[in-house]
Amino acid sequence: MSSFPPSLENLIDRFASLPGIGRKSAQRLAFHVLSLPEGEAEAFSQAILEARESVHTCSVCQNLTDGETCRICADKNRDEKVICVVSDPRDVFAIERSREYKGLYHVLHGVISPISHVGPDDIKIKELVARVADGDVSEVIMATNPDTEGETTAKYISRLIKPFGVTVTRLAYGVPVGASLEFADDATLMRALEGRREI
Amino acid sequence: MSSFPPSLENLIDRFASLPGIGRKSAQRLAFHVLSLPEGEAEAFSQAILEARESVHTCSVCQNLTDGETCRICADKNRDEKVICVVSDPRDVFAIERSREYKGLYHVLHGVISPISHVGPDDIKIKELVARVADGDVSEVIMATNPDTEGETTAKYISRLIKPFGVTVTRLAYGVPVGASLEFADDATLMRALEGRREI
Repeated sequence: MSSFPPSLENLIDRFASLPGIGRKSAQRLAFHVLSLPEGEAEAFSQAILEARESVHTCSVCQNLTDGETCRICADKNRDEKVICVVSDPRDVFAIERSREYKGLYHVLHGVISPISHVGPDDIKIKELVARVADGDVSEVIMATNPDTEGETTAKYISRLIKPFGVTVTRLAYGVPVGASLEFADDATLMRALEGRREI
Repeated sequence: MSSFPPSLENLIDRFASLPGIGRKSAQRLAFHVLSLPEGEAEAFSQAILEARESVHTCSVCQNLTDGETCRICADKNRDEKVICVVSDPRDVFAIERSREYKGLYHVLHGVISPISHVGPDDIKIKELVARVADGDVSEVIMATNPDTEGETTAKYISRLIKPFGVTVTRLAYGVPVGASLEFADDATLMRALEGRREI
């Protein structure tokens, strides 16, 4: 038995259905929304609708965009010969933050995962193969996550696109910058030793 | 420099403005909303508007409601002679959950707090005094939080309403049920000793 009005209860339920938001947090968020200044709650409500309506995938790289192609694909200063393949749009954001990479991207929207019933046809692999087959791409950097599924996906794609004569590379494994060796796991340390470089 | 489309960036900002939601969580929530099935995101957006439009305070007890009076005030089976005074609508929810209390409530919507510039006129004390002066209330239970501000508010209200001939009581202090004595703080243990009862 609840003592909240149904519309408030409904808002709490909506918040509680979001990932990582428990019942107590959902209550706090719903009460916060009720206490927002005039117009702010309406703007929040509107933001949800607008994001849903205007955001879709870029026709070239499958990254999220509100135009026909995304800002990165549309940018003439980027190196069109290099494609960095990631599993999620957030990974593009992470790599862009480093301001180091000047090529294009390809977002797979997932990784091959037999356990979750995700096969090669369920993610944007066809689109990547088409880009490699069409254009004059010289290098494809596989930047899927360094876990089993990311690794499998990288290997699978690598086999598919190598026949087109492109260089396929993988992000370097090693100890994270700023981390303590003491806390690095065995697999990471092994890869860091394997990948050692002369200084 | 962000690589998200502006409308997605806006939704992330909205989520990040909620209490306890950091930038990373806001990103996760916004992406979740984008991935919701058709209609679900619209329902979320609508839930915000509806809660804002329909929820207001009960004309009697100041609890949140979508009717003229709240369900507790409207319930003829509740004991109208007892009023439990809490600082927040969520406290009503907490006490109702115990299914023990059968009286009515009064929600102050805050506590007296000189540090935060909240004086007696900024919370619903007038409304409480009016209820006590009008009706045949026999007991007022002060259930504000057991901290300095809650304590001050309870004492202040107690002085105001005692002249009307009502009994004013305070929630019992003591060790929480299921807790370990070892971890109880000194103030709580002292209050628990003071309030000891014959068994």
